[in-house]
Amino acid sequence: MRFDLVISNGTIATASDVFSADIGIKDGIIVQIGGEMGEAAQTIDAAGKYVLPGGIDSHVHIAQPSGEGIVMADDFESGTRSALFGGNTTVLPFCLQKKGRPLREALTAYHALAKGNCYTDVSFHLIVSDPSEAVLGQELPALVEDGYTSFKVFMTYEDLRLSDAQILETMDVARRTGALVMVHCENEDAIRYLIGRHEADGTVAPKAHATTRPIAVEREATHRAVSLAEVADVPLVIVHVSNREAMEEIERARRRGRKVIGETCPQYLMLTADDLDGMDWEGAKFVCSPPPRDTASQAACWDGLERGVFELFSSDHCPFRYDDPAGKLNPKGSRSFRHIPNGIPGVELRLPILFSEGVMKGRIDLPRFVALTATNQARTYGLYPRKGTIAVGADADIAIWDSTLTRTVRHADMHDGADYTPYEGRELTGWPTTVVLGGKIMVHEGELLGSKGDGTYRSRGRSQYATPTQEQSFET
Amino acid sequence: MRFDLVISNGTIATASDVFSADIGIKDGIIVQIGGEMGEAAQTIDAAGKYVLPGGIDSHVHIAQPSGEGIVMADDFESGTRSALFGGNTTVLPFCLQKKGRPLREALTAYHALAKGNCYTDVSFHLIVSDPSEAVLGQELPALVEDGYTSFKVFMTYEDLRLSDAQILETMDVARRTGALVMVHCENEDAIRYLIGRHEADGTVAPKAHATTRPIAVEREATHRAVSLAEVADVPLVIVHVSNREAMEEIERARRRGRKVIGETCPQYLMLTADDLDGMDWEGAKFVCSPPPRDTASQAACWDGLERGVFELFSSDHCPFRYDDPAGKLNPKGSRSFRHIPNGIPGVELRLPILFSEGVMKGRIDLPRFVALTATNQARTYGLYPRKGTIAVGADADIAIWDSTLTRTVRHADMHDGADYTPYEGRELTGWPTTVVLGGKIMVHEGELLGSKGDGTYRSRGRSQYATPTQEQSFET
Amino acid sequence: MRFDLVISNGTIATASDVFSADIGIKDGIIVQIGGEMGEAAQTIDAAGKYVLPGGIDSHVHIAQPSGEGIVMADDFESGTRSALFGGNTTVLPFCLQKKGRPLREALTAYHALAKGNCYTDVSFHLIVSDPSEAVLGQELPALVEDGYTSFKVFMTYEDLRLSDAQILETMDVARRTGALVMVHCENEDAIRYLIGRHEADGTVAPKAHATTRPIAVEREATHRAVSLAEVADVPLVIVHVSNREAMEEIERARRRGRKVIGETCPQYLMLTADDLDGMDWEGAKFVCSPPPRDTASQAACWDGLERGVFELFSSDHCPFRYDDPAGKLNPKGSRSFRHIPNGIPGVELRLPILFSEGVMKGRIDLPRFVALTATNQARTYGLYPRKGTIAVGADADIAIWDSTLTRTVRHADMHDGADYTPYEGRELTGWPTTVVLGGKIMVHEGELLGSKGDGTYRSRGRSQYATPTQEQSFET
Amino acid sequence: MRFDLVISNGTIATASDVFSADIGIKDGIIVQIGGEMGEAAQTIDAAGKYVLPGGIDSHVHIAQPSGEGIVMADDFESGTRSALFGGNTTVLPFCLQKKGRPLREALTAYHALAKGNCYTDVSFHLIVSDPSEAVLGQELPALVEDGYTSFKVFMTYEDLRLSDAQILETMDVARRTGALVMVHCENEDAIRYLIGRHEADGTVAPKAHATTRPIAVEREATHRAVSLAEVADVPLVIVHVSNREAMEEIERARRRGRKVIGETCPQYLMLTADDLDGMDWEGAKFVCSPPPRDTASQAACWDGLERGVFELFSSDHCPFRYDDPAGKLNPKGSRSFRHIPNGIPGVELRLPILFSEGVMKGRIDLPRFVALTATNQARTYGLYPRKGTIAVGADADIAIWDSTLTRTVRHADMHDGADYTPYEGRELTGWPTTVVLGGKIMVHEGELLGSKGDGTYRSRGRSQYATPTQEQSFET
Repeated sequence: MRFDLVISNGTIATASDVFSADIGIKDGIIVQIGGEMGEAAQTIDAAGKYVLPGGIDSHVHIAQPSGEGIVMADDFESGTRSALFGGNTTVLPFCLQKKGRPLREALTAYHALAKGNCYTDVSFHLIVSDPSEAVLGQELPALVEDGYTSFKVFMTYEDLRLSDAQILETMDVARRTGALVMVHCENEDAIRYLIGRHEADGTVAPKAHATTRPIAVEREATHRAVSLAEVADVPLVIVHVSNREAMEEIERARRRGRKVIGETCPQYLMLTADDLDGMDWEGAKFVCSPPPRDTASQAACWDGLERGVFELFSSDHCPFRYDDPAGKLNPKGSRSFRHIPNGIPGVELRLPILFSEGVMKGRIDLPRFVALTATNQARTYGLYPRKGTIAVGADADIAIWDSTLTRTVRHADMHDGADYTPYEGRELTGWPTTVVLGGKIMVHEGELLGSKGDGTYRSRGRSQYATPTQEQSFET
Repeated sequence: MRFDLVISNGTIATASDVFSADIGIKDGIIVQIGGEMGEAAQTIDAAGKYVLPGGIDSHVHIAQPSGEGIVMADDFESGTRSALFGGNTTVLPFCLQKKGRPLREALTAYHALAKGNCYTDVSFHLIVSDPSEAVLGQELPALVEDGYTSFKVFMTYEDLRLSDAQILETMDVARRTGALVMVHCENEDAIRYLIGRHEADGTVAPKAHATTRPIAVEREATHRAVSLAEVADVPLVIVHVSNREAMEEIERARRRGRKVIGETCPQYLMLTADDLDGMDWEGAKFVCSPPPRDTASQAACWDGLERGVFELFSSDHCPFRYDDPAGKLNPKGSRSFRHIPNGIPGVELRLPILFSEGVMKGRIDLPRFVALTATNQARTYGLYPRKGTIAVGADADIAIWDSTLTRTVRHADMHDGADYTPYEGRELTGWPTTVVLGGKIMVHEGELLGSKGDGTYRSRGRSQYATPTQEQSFET
Repeated sequence: MRFDLVISNGTIATASDVFSADIGIKDGIIVQIGGEMGEAAQTIDAAGKYVLPGGIDSHVHIAQPSGEGIVMADDFESGTRSALFGGNTTVLPFCLQKKGRPLREALTAYHALAKGNCYTDVSFHLIVSDPSEAVLGQELPALVEDGYTSFKVFMTYEDLRLSDAQILETMDVARRTGALVMVHCENEDAIRYLIGRHEADGTVAPKAHATTRPIAVEREATHRAVSLAEVADVPLVIVHVSNREAMEEIERARRRGRKVIGETCPQYLMLTADDLDGMDWEGAKFVCSPPPRDTASQAACWDGLERGVFELFSSDHCPFRYDDPAGKLNPKGSRSFRHIPNGIPGVELRLPILFSEGVMKGRIDLPRFVALTATNQARTYGLYPRKGTIAVGADADIAIWDSTLTRTVRHADMHDGADYTPYEGRELTGWPTTVVLGGKIMVHEGELLGSKGDGTYRSRGRSQYATPTQEQSFET
Repeated sequence: MRFDLVISNGTIATASDVFSADIGIKDGIIVQIGGEMGEAAQTIDAAGKYVLPGGIDSHVHIAQPSGEGIVMADDFESGTRSALFGGNTTVLPFCLQKKGRPLREALTAYHALAKGNCYTDVSFHLIVSDPSEAVLGQELPALVEDGYTSFKVFMTYEDLRLSDAQILETMDVARRTGALVMVHCENEDAIRYLIGRHEADGTVAPKAHATTRPIAVEREATHRAVSLAEVADVPLVIVHVSNREAMEEIERARRRGRKVIGETCPQYLMLTADDLDGMDWEGAKFVCSPPPRDTASQAACWDGLERGVFELFSSDHCPFRYDDPAGKLNPKGSRSFRHIPNGIPGVELRLPILFSEGVMKGRIDLPRFVALTATNQARTYGLYPRKGTIAVGADADIAIWDSTLTRTVRHADMHDGADYTPYEGRELTGWPTTVVLGGKIMVHEGELLGSKGDGTYRSRGRSQYATPTQEQSFET
């Protein structure tokens, strides 16, 4: 066989194994591991390097419209370019339903934005903001059949939150169709109440973003979400968990026999609420929800990554410009923390952060790194076995890592559309140097070789954790 | 001193002590314990009997209007007469705010119903069904000052449930005024969802009342309630807890440093969901919310009484007639479990059940019995030290118990306005034979000696667990 | 009636109630509460003061011999005098069995030491150090009948520790006789192992006492003790609990249905391991076992007092002289922490510490103070209802407290035989000013009015938590 | 390349992935996966079958001497033959130190028994029964260097149990050398105590084996073991966990940050204590320690396999003959349950049981099956990456499974030396049909093609969870 590409001499890691072998790629697919490779159109020498599945980031926000007219800092071009340089080959942004409108409409627009502009493969989750009878009865079931197999619902944000009844109805569609539900768990009413007390008090600096969203608010919503999923009898993804109390809700649910998948993100390992305390509104750069907590919560999140409370490590990339002409993050006038858009950039640093702080510091091993960032992501969201691993038959989506490379994070070196990174100045060891997408070398030695449009939309199958059922029976 | 009444030769029990002494009463007050009693207008010989504080039942529904026009089986006359025969000297019914109307209006009507008709002392909790700005801002604070120091909120029942935001606003009034909030914890949306699935399935018999309100629904709401109280920083009463999972939420909250007071009721010790399975709609006689569970939950509730998870043991007396002409519980036509009014009678048997099953069977001792049924009730709801104990200076509200008396429960022997008891045929040992209210012998040897109107309305002080605060400070 | 003593105008507190009444005492017994008191031989005006049951300290070491020839700083005279000034009317020291010798021998000697020398009533626990067949088979059962109804066993100290087999055999005697077992929970082998590593390391200063007895060592032994009690099916007292992990073992055991009584002591509220770090061997003044931990453990112990994890608050008074001629605590030569005798004085400050830090700071209320320091102590160890409360028929053992009095702790003001107090310089508010023992005023306004010998030995009944049983049946 | 063996058309599973590819084997090693295979000396067509790593059973007893002279039913020949037919390619029996003798002596004898007689590869754990100074100081460190990198210690069995001090000393050797400690967790003293009560009661039938070893006894020892490991700061393997309470000790230890590896076995999924209740001493066939529990414990063990409480699923194969001429299991005379040797056969059915009950019934997926039975076993015990997976460079140890094959278990079809199987009559679906060891086809279609001696002794590296350290520092 004549290969299109051979990656030779590297140390391959999957979610279970680490071994040395060459990889032979043809027609975008991994076809041979080990053995004699014969001829190849292209060869990459990976000697001394780790050859890992390309990262899958199942939690990114790209070109997502907002109620207040704020423009997100990344479109598909910049967002996927940033992801690619960060060692990713697939990202899953959210397609947001506009209230009163069909999801198809948002999908059509979203596909149009993505088409021809992506440097990684993409697939879309659906944010259900208006679960009308038509959406629940016809549209969502049809969309699941079309490969949009995951729904996200919000328990916070005035314009997005669903009531418990709406969440249950959405979960019921998931139950019947085999879709998977993701939940953002924070109690909006409690946040509103605390905002009211803060404002009555004149407490309006960015730090108040953290004190109006205390751990109790996340823990409450987490327990409620897993309880609603218990009532509807569906598996559930709890996204961006920030602290031990919310983790315990996941573990308690599992001990009750529930399938609950946990996710955490770099900000909960690297930042704290004190970062929101910056001078002169600088704290706004660290505003995301749930907010970063404290060092004990960081340790808890590491513990969760090690012990398997978390199966997913994603970025929750949600970039805004600090010095936007519209002055969103850095308002010149006197505004409240309430008006800072929630979200920080992170798609490019997710993997280097986990590699440097996790693998290099001995907290997790390489198979766990691969599981958290690629294999579990693919399994959870219906991309497996096509993506998420290095195995014969899988897409040749590969990142080659140099574990000897130490760099200081500078936003100047990033490839996203924001104007800052919350991790400026951090020193990280271990970086992806080559990224291969479907057998094509997209990045090599820091140089962009691929073109926008090389990444394409990928329809997904069902999550391996979700099965459609028509069962109605009830037991207390 | 010449006493109005002396109770001699009995064995007195308080929430901590058991000892033998005579009690001298004057002007409705206990003035002397032990010593020489001298002359007395009346003497009761309590030799061989227990002399206990009169029961306080802080959870009864009397003459409460319902949205569907169902008439409750007890007015103040029959309800307090039944309570009195069950060894109680004070009951706390709920005064229900009508939506869109001030609480004062409901109170005026409720006082009118009670005045001159009571055989026990009464005091009212306020059910907040419509926490408008006027209610929260002016009316509730004024009512707390007037001695209505406890608010009840519902998380279930379409016409009563409050949103989390409304619960928080009500809790905030409690925070500022030192009132105490009680919560009925079941997730209405989840119940509605399950009702929908049951009806789609044609499952409409009374047993469906239990399967549409599974433990998860109560556990969820319990955790939410304690979390909202954590956010608002107020103590909380969780009423009528039915199972171990909800108990664990109370214990977890306490370990987080929260003050949470737990209550359970006779139905959760004596009934199970199987009782709702009766032939020919008989199961309707056992419909209450939360529903009775199973024998493991009964054991859990006993455990909670023994270990102090519960400080309160109340009846949740909420009586309806089974053979009402309006056919509410026993519909002749084909109706759904949804239309059975929720609630069962119990005020007369609460104490005999706990005495017989608890004290006589060695599960709890006499001081714990007194604490659960009188002292803690008084402490929790601002009636202490005037009521709830046998001590110098306290109201002479006393029940004399014969622990050798065994009787089979027959509704024919009850004194309430319903036409059945869910405990028909149970054999109980230990009954109150004499009840003294404010020094007046109301019941003696099964004979009613008191008159309606001997019981009066009692304004209350603040709960010993609640303190008004204006504090606004926030910590994550 | 003519009373020997009337205490008038005070505010009485029991474990459940607080009320104002006079107390009439005759022949050493409380005979009347409230009412007209008539004539009295003596009257104390307690206006503005609290009238509480005299403290019972169930955990004190007095005149206890040690293997290494160290002389304890208190004999019965100084020990009970110190207790008396601290508001106590009964103390329970330990009578230590000498290995290879009958318990009766030790009891004879101990009685001889106590007789005629006590300022408080006393009763003895038995320390079983050598549970031979004769001891288990004949002596202990006979001693229980004679009113020695509690056994203490040690899991640490080379010369005292029992094997699990010996503990089980001792528990089995308790099971059959209705005695109550108390356990000192620390794993001796683990401590020896850590001492070995410390000594290999040259780490021998007093602070090493804490690091060789970490929390894991106490948690392990606590869980083992409750498990052995589970196997033998007996109730159990866990003495001197120092931290949250050990508390959790108690709570877990209770949730499994076990009766486990928890005790903590002043040192775990007031000291930390850092106190052992003092200059120039000063840390030796704070050496006790388990060692004081950290501020989080202090908070945990407060939490345990509030939530009922602890029913008992005792001193573990175990006094040694720092400047003893024998140089025990303050060795002039180079010695290891291993040779510091374990124990600190505390019987005189136990109650003022809990009153000042607990009641006055609002952490516990007065009934809980009484329960922890008197009523529960009496109930647990078979002294109730004779002692532990203020009720008609009880011994007139009473302490009158002035809650307005603030004093700085100075050892110069103490009445024990040691030469320091670990609480030197602490400011406490609330002190006992008058102490009455069996109707006799022993201390009044700081003056000692009683004589040694006024306190006598009291035989005890069985604990209210223990019942003899011959049951053999087994269930997994 | 010309391969020695090609396995074609199968579905390969590793601990993370399932994919279709051919496998090329040369010189006993997997050299190529996927791609063109070219020539091969032998080819196996695995179409429609699963190609899995050969099972590693890290917990088997073979030819182990006993104090009472009982002869184990399996020597290396029969034991490894039985293992091989059960889909295993490596087993790890225990080499038992004789008291007072060096471990080397036992090893020499054990090697002699194994040499030339094995059908699978073997490696030995060391049972430390007499941790003398010489053993701890010289012998064990040297043996670790020689590749005996795991020690087993017992907390039960009179002749094997170590004291806590001895366990700590053994753990300390592990700490310094990087060996891994395995513990059998049952409290011997508690068992002795219960045996005494049973015998006093005349309760001596086989079922008493279960009631003298209740869950509390295992839970206690499990917590003690993890606590000792915490004190010594070493990772730990808890073998043969039988119930939820012991599982919770493992999970609690992990939440405290400890590395604890859990193992369960087929008997805890398939048997209950009721099986010991058989007529006429038949119950003796099910006597193992810990004993099988009940159906709730079975469900708990399944839960533990699914949730990752257990990383290892092993057989604890420990075979005795029921109709042995020595009458060990089936005594003709009247003997006590005490004399039944503890252990049951299981090495041949471990994998079919987990495959049929776990994979085929949807409780675990194929990667989890591989992880539990091969990959984690290799990782835990220092055989990885040489063994335990299908990857380029690994030993060609492979089992080919037919998931369509249903068979009823008959001991007549087994290949071990015992005369019964505790699973007689069970119907299992999914069996290994071909087993390859180091590239050699040992079993094919039920036929034994390999020879004794094809399996060899394998020295091991350190566990990936254990690292040698000389650190002495201490923190509470």
